[in-house]
Amino acid sequence: MSDRREFRDLASPAEAREAIDSLDLSPADETVSLDEARGRVLAGRIDAALDVPGFDRASMDGYAVRARDTFGADEADPAVLDQIGAVHAGAEPDVEVTEGTCAEISTGAVMPPGADAVVKVERTDEVDAGVAIRTSVAPGDAVMVAGADVAAGSRALGPGTLLTPREIGLLSALGVDEVPVRGRPTVGIVSTGDELVRPGGDLNSDAGQIYDVNSYTIAAGVEEAGGEAVLYPHAGDDYDEMERLLVEAAEECDLVLSSGSTSASAVDVIYRVIETEGDLLLHGVSVKPGKPMLVGRLDDSAYIGLPGYPVSALTIFQTFVAPAIREAAALPEPRTATVEGEMAVQERYGEGRTRLMPVGLVDDADGTRLVYPVDKGSGATTSLVEADGVVEVDADTAYLAAGEQVTVQLFSPDVRPPALFGVGEDDPALSRLLDHVSQPRYLDVGSRQGRRRLRDGVPDVAVVSGPSDRDLDAVELGGWTREWGLVVPPGNPDDVDGLADLVDRDLRFVNRAVDAGLRASLDAELERLADERDTDRRDLTDAIDGYDLTVKGFESPARKVLAGDAAVGLGLRETAETLDCGFVPLGTESVTVLADPDRAAKPGVESLQQALDTRLDDVVDSLSGYDA
Amino acid sequence: MSDRREFRDLASPAEAREAIDSLDLSPADETVSLDEARGRVLAGRIDAALDVPGFDRASMDGYAVRARDTFGADEADPAVLDQIGAVHAGAEPDVEVTEGTCAEISTGAVMPPGADAVVKVERTDEVDAGVAIRTSVAPGDAVMVAGADVAAGSRALGPGTLLTPREIGLLSALGVDEVPVRGRPTVGIVSTGDELVRPGGDLNSDAGQIYDVNSYTIAAGVEEAGGEAVLYPHAGDDYDEMERLLVEAAEECDLVLSSGSTSASAVDVIYRVIETEGDLLLHGVSVKPGKPMLVGRLDDSAYIGLPGYPVSALTIFQTFVAPAIREAAALPEPRTATVEGEMAVQERYGEGRTRLMPVGLVDDADGTRLVYPVDKGSGATTSLVEADGVVEVDADTAYLAAGEQVTVQLFSPDVRPPALFGVGEDDPALSRLLDHVSQPRYLDVGSRQGRRRLRDGVPDVAVVSGPSDRDLDAVELGGWTREWGLVVPPGNPDDVDGLADLVDRDLRFVNRAVDAGLRASLDAELERLADERDTDRRDLTDAIDGYDLTVKGFESPARKVLAGDAAVGLGLRETAETLDCGFVPLGTESVTVLADPDRAAKPGVESLQQALDTRLDDVVDSLSGYDA
Repeated sequence: MSDRREFRDLASPAEAREAIDSLDLSPADETVSLDEARGRVLAGRIDAALDVPGFDRASMDGYAVRARDTFGADEADPAVLDQIGAVHAGAEPDVEVTEGTCAEISTGAVMPPGADAVVKVERTDEVDAGVAIRTSVAPGDAVMVAGADVAAGSRALGPGTLLTPREIGLLSALGVDEVPVRGRPTVGIVSTGDELVRPGGDLNSDAGQIYDVNSYTIAAGVEEAGGEAVLYPHAGDDYDEMERLLVEAAEECDLVLSSGSTSASAVDVIYRVIETEGDLLLHGVSVKPGKPMLVGRLDDSAYIGLPGYPVSALTIFQTFVAPAIREAAALPEPRTATVEGEMAVQERYGEGRTRLMPVGLVDDADGTRLVYPVDKGSGATTSLVEADGVVEVDADTAYLAAGEQVTVQLFSPDVRPPALFGVGEDDPALSRLLDHVSQPRYLDVGSRQGRRRLRDGVPDVAVVSGPSDRDLDAVELGGWTREWGLVVPPGNPDDVDGLADLVDRDLRFVNRAVDAGLRASLDAELERLADERDTDRRDLTDAIDGYDLTVKGFESPARKVLAGDAAVGLGLRETAETLDCGFVPLGTESVTVLADPDRAAKPGVESLQQALDTRLDDVVDSLSGYDA
Repeated sequence: MSDRREFRDLASPAEAREAIDSLDLSPADETVSLDEARGRVLAGRIDAALDVPGFDRASMDGYAVRARDTFGADEADPAVLDQIGAVHAGAEPDVEVTEGTCAEISTGAVMPPGADAVVKVERTDEVDAGVAIRTSVAPGDAVMVAGADVAAGSRALGPGTLLTPREIGLLSALGVDEVPVRGRPTVGIVSTGDELVRPGGDLNSDAGQIYDVNSYTIAAGVEEAGGEAVLYPHAGDDYDEMERLLVEAAEECDLVLSSGSTSASAVDVIYRVIETEGDLLLHGVSVKPGKPMLVGRLDDSAYIGLPGYPVSALTIFQTFVAPAIREAAALPEPRTATVEGEMAVQERYGEGRTRLMPVGLVDDADGTRLVYPVDKGSGATTSLVEADGVVEVDADTAYLAAGEQVTVQLFSPDVRPPALFGVGEDDPALSRLLDHVSQPRYLDVGSRQGRRRLRDGVPDVAVVSGPSDRDLDAVELGGWTREWGLVVPPGNPDDVDGLADLVDRDLRFVNRAVDAGLRASLDAELERLADERDTDRRDLTDAIDGYDLTVKGFESPARKVLAGDAAVGLGLRETAETLDCGFVPLGTESVTVLADPDRAAKPGVESLQQALDTRLDDVVDSLSGYDA
């Protein structure tokens, strides 16, 4: 551990931006065909090489005439002209309009020689002697002369223009079928860390393997910023291979990203490669998170090392790297990249370095956008979807007050605040109901935390179950009941019969955490048993092996039982049936959906109400031990 | 012409939306790999199939201990434990922590059996007897238990979720490498009209051919709305082939679009095919533009016929079709699809049907977004890039006042209002200077119109040349001079010597329109010649063959001369040299860049000022007859 690098001289965020700006990520310009040009940025000026239209063009259906032949004509005294032929769009005129004659003409057709105006068909009549013209026209009427739309030689589009459908329309009109555009910077992503396995691969949890979160996340961020992501194969713990991959990526890409390994030796390999093949510009930035960020040059390529934790990696990527990729691609920052909001709660902070604070967003009843900190720390990947973006808090800001205006840099310009924000108990019926609500966010924090957070005024709804000793000012949207009890291995090999078995026998148990409604229901049952035995609940819980062994999800105890880690788990009949376990029923508890009274009219809450009203019966019918 | 259909019973816009809503464009769901999932919409709920982390995981570098062995330890009285080994991330522990022992552990490593907490390295010392632990820890400290991040069985993401980098991160963490997503609706685009040629093809202007603008424009709009565009080959005037293509497109696509042909017989083919193979729901909608819109079913596919003029086609597409494609793809309307602004000028309208009014946007000095109508009519493709979107004006609104708030539906969510809006003279030096201004919009309306519009307060700057008899309240940003005169064929075969030749000899001339500064300069010279001859200017101009024959761009007269359509054209020395023509100089005129005094501090105007200050010398050096 003594080899591990220390980041003593941390750079400021401004210095980090400067170092990144000094890198050259710009790819060469390229030529793309028009059907692939949307979203690209023009690399040079396009001047019109031809007139549009390329000929004097009739802009109405009617008759091509010599204007002077119509002078004086009106409804009362039409001019009658000989019709000498017809000209259709896309055809070369085969007639010449001479004095006293006219030619039928379609919109878009070439004006025949001799004609200098079009009389629209509504002001004419076919008569025996020819065509009666009931109005007089001036030369040029209803004619678009060649070049009147776009004149050859004129400036059509300039360099730096983002090509949207309308620009593609103008290029089409000019006959341009390929255009010079700014290249997309190629960004190589090298994943380091012995413990990482690509999604889809087999995971050996006993050996501490985890799925590689950052590679695909950052690749998606790179593409979103206008770059082209290249994922390099995972080098595992072969450091020669890692070195080879870094050098290869540097040769092939404009920018190489690695996301920090927790393995010290992997970091050392990166240092060694950069020091041999390149130039380390800075290591360590005074921001939280992101302290271990590296910036340097590797061969002719730029190199940036990101932190390892997913939220930190995405935060540092969006804050420092995405702007550099966009600039290299000449793309503007999307207008939806940031939103304004006000702090829903106060937040203290005083570490003396810039903080990139992950936050969630929720709209209150009157549409005010509230911002609340989300910081699970510890590298939780769920923070990725529980946060919408980050607020950059200055190093000298020690305190953000509730109500204070802040700017949120979204994790993606496509991120939208949830339409419904719920917290509380985890439950399979709820999970299915949420499928019928558009853009919900639901945090499984348990019933106790759910009640507390609803009281604090941040979420729209809380879903709670089990007994509670505190009243809550809330609107009840609906609810259902679920049967709970003890989940045991298939066939109930230990012949578990009830709670007393846990207390009296030597059975390894898995519990839920204190915030879970199921846990409160269990504790109430234990209280009852203690009363029966005229003893204290504490005496009973002390006797249960594993009472303090708690796991997170409603299925988790059952899964522990199935894995052979315990003999009995706290859970639902539904879970026992789904996972083919045995089940010893202990009771039925109510699950209730409570809304903040101020938010009851919010569309997302109404949408959940509608799901409860129309979908709940079907949902509970599909689950064992459920009732509406 | 008698066969042509009349649109007598026009549907209302609401009826058109209803008819489109009744069509089924929804494609089947599909499965995509995680690296192609960004921007797609989840088709079903994803529940976690495994715990994350899959093992009890150290969340700090330090020592794995039994917490009870540290009870009572502090800085003054450390507990000293035997170090029995080390566990690294990605490795299976090969030690068991027993009473009085500890194991070195890295962040992310599996907790070895027996250990229930981690003491961070900063609170320890290596000492001779082992490891001194200078703090006490509780069970679970610095450990993330299995499933604490995501518990197996819990709801991870719901149907309808737009997949951005953060969702891709969560899916990665769950090991998911392919996901069920909503299909993209396939949209076939059939171009009708004998006169259309695909960009890149050869154009026969004499036969009235024009490039097909709508196919690529609408294809780009389809892709932007989340559909997949399929361009069918152009059928030309072979109506059997057109029928075959429509039927083929209907078989292969969820939606078939055609953009209206100006050719009556092509429209008849479409009618016939829909009436035989499908169902015409409505023909003709009471909106301007878009009256000729068709909605129907063709085989099992939906069919919508768009108007032929590019601005009309894009307007109707964005207003009626793009929302239907987005809905079929389950994509939300982009937040940037509309902007608010206030009318810069008044606009009268009273046709009794809904108007989709093409408008441009410009920000005034204090950031107010001004909206002004752009309606060149006559199918001008330049309107595509001169307008930013459309304002929907109700049928019963006859008048929009200046200052009135309106909502603009942008032609694309990526459209941004120009940073600089200029109008006036067309000039090659200006064109080059604009290359150094980001997001300029410049309309070649001529010097006279440029002065008028600057006076009316809509554009930021006007570029003017030639004599003017009206004063203008404006800030002069800079300018240059250009040499003008008569452009003649190479070698000056007619020995043109000056203006007198035009008056006195039988030479066909091509002029510029009255709005052009060059035309004003020419007229001033003719005035001088008339004075010399003691006659009226009108007598001279009457004697010039083609004095009233005007063309649009600064190069246009020279191109007419080169094409043999005229013997002499009005133009610049620069143009004559670029196009290898002969040139007879008549004078030098100033080109001046004038800014609206209220807008002088606008960033776009400052950017043009900077281009004038730093780039003008290089630009004029590169042009013949130019001086700064």
